[in-house]
Amino acid sequence: MSKQLFIPKNKDFRLVIDSKLERQFFMNLLKMRLTEIEPGYVTAQVDIEQIHEQQNGFVHGGLTATIADVAMGFAAFSLVEAGKGMVTSKLDIAYLKPAKNGKLIAKGSVIKAGNLLYYCEADILNVTSDGETLVARGYATMCSIDLPKE
Amino acid sequence: MSKQLFIPKNKDFRLVIDSKLERQFFMNLLKMRLTEIEPGYVTAQVDIEQIHEQQNGFVHGGLTATIADVAMGFAAFSLVEAGKGMVTSKLDIAYLKPAKNGKLIAKGSVIKAGNLLYYCEADILNVTSDGETLVARGYATMCSIDLPKE
Amino acid sequence: MSKQLFIPKNKDFRLVIDSKLERQFFMNLLKMRLTEIEPGYVTAQVDIEQIHEQQNGFVHGGLTATIADVAMGFAAFSLVEAGKGMVTSKLDIAYLKPAKNGKLIAKGSVIKAGNLLYYCEADILNVTSDGETLVARGYATMCSIDLPKE
Amino acid sequence: MSKQLFIPKNKDFRLVIDSKLERQFFMNLLKMRLTEIEPGYVTAQVDIEQIHEQQNGFVHGGLTATIADVAMGFAAFSLVEAGKGMVTSKLDIAYLKPAKNGKLIAKGSVIKAGNLLYYCEADILNVTSDGETLVARGYATMCSIDLPKE
Repeated sequence: MSKQLFIPKNKDFRLVIDSKLERQFFMNLLKMRLTEIEPGYVTAQVDIEQIHEQQNGFVHGGLTATIADVAMGFAAFSLVEAGKGMVTSKLDIAYLKPAKNGKLIAKGSVIKAGNLLYYCEADILNVTSDGETLVARGYATMCSIDLPKE
Repeated sequence: MSKQLFIPKNKDFRLVIDSKLERQFFMNLLKMRLTEIEPGYVTAQVDIEQIHEQQNGFVHGGLTATIADVAMGFAAFSLVEAGKGMVTSKLDIAYLKPAKNGKLIAKGSVIKAGNLLYYCEADILNVTSDGETLVARGYATMCSIDLPKE
Repeated sequence: MSKQLFIPKNKDFRLVIDSKLERQFFMNLLKMRLTEIEPGYVTAQVDIEQIHEQQNGFVHGGLTATIADVAMGFAAFSLVEAGKGMVTSKLDIAYLKPAKNGKLIAKGSVIKAGNLLYYCEADILNVTSDGETLVARGYATMCSIDLPKE
Repeated sequence: MSKQLFIPKNKDFRLVIDSKLERQFFMNLLKMRLTEIEPGYVTAQVDIEQIHEQQNGFVHGGLTATIADVAMGFAAFSLVEAGKGMVTSKLDIAYLKPAKNGKLIAKGSVIKAGNLLYYCEADILNVTSDGETLVARGYATMCSIDLPKE
């Protein structure tokens, strides 16, 4: 998947994203963090532990969906002007292979930035000592919203 | 959404599901539990706490995706014969409204049980003292697999 | 699928839809027509002929996708105010069974009408002398737009 | 989107596809043809005429869905062994921009070929004298089936 170049409308987008992360309780619970923040492109990562597993010892599909949502949501959010927020309208995950051990990494990209709707895609990779495997693909429609004034 | 009636191929499906839940670490982390198990129909529930929130105080979309996946996955799993497993092939979530406080409940139903593929849908509800709100709809293709002999 | 009751913003929605249909060349090519128009609920129908078939004698999946899009799109369009249009943002089709002979009918319903986004679902039925079979389910996000003044 | 290299299981896959096309009545009705057939990669094309339009003069979304389904379906079909068929299990279309005039081209690729399930993606392009525009993205799960003996 090739990265597209976008000009961010808010040059402080990294600072704004950092401030959002402070209150991201669910990402904290999952020990998920952002590892790269570019305009229209964000990667998220989890070091896989037993807490992330379902009954057969594989990564739970809900973790895969969450990391895809996070990477695509922040990729879209990096492009909005100050004072705007971003919500997921539709999230689709295609599960290609089970993931196990090592790291789970989602690379989220904006493929079209509209006035209101942002179309995004993500590669979700399982990275172990054996190499890198594409374990899922994510597709999302994100919708920008006006945030309430604080 | 009307519940369809299915005849389970494994009459011990509730016992099998219970034994699976013991090693469901990710569901445990999220404090998610099953509250109803019928053939082709399963409900999952979370009492919403701060750990489930994103930066604006709403339930994280990843939790919504996970609870939908869990309810639909076990709904499909309740219908397979002994020795089979169930994996998610495709998971789609339409986010209709933000969820906050109270309970998050997913009602997962099988809408078509094939030889191999199980099509499922889910209502995801936010239940508070103000009543019940449909906050998301889930759609999934589940695929039955042969489990390795233990 | 239960029909929800909506109050249309444009009381002339049936007239507006009728005028749109005059220039619906693709629907004409497919011999597709609307058979029921209620606020937030529209049915579309095709009498299946050889022109609708793929190589194995079944209805082509593209026809199923089109009839679902048409029913859901007009269901959403029935709810907008005068001067607005409706475009499909995301269209998903789950194919449950092959369709053959008789009629193909799509029943499209709005499940949530937002300010801008309309979430819709559809039952696609194959009706023959043997009865009625659910052959596909459709899910769509529709987006209302301002139409250029004529 | 990069093309992946696949080894076809049936070396006569082009001949088999050609023979299927003879009875593809729906593709004929739409004046749709295949323009490139590689293992795991197929392009389909339509020269846009008035018959393809909806009421506002743009290509109907049903045509876009059909051309995506055709390109992805044959891309998956090119990889199966002799005697197998391919059906669409789930088809998703993200509509990015309206298409008008010139050609509509779908480039369908298999992104994962499993034993039974084939995951595919497609770029749908509108090619005019002004250049090439990505107007939609398609995602599909295709399922291989045993064809009845003739």
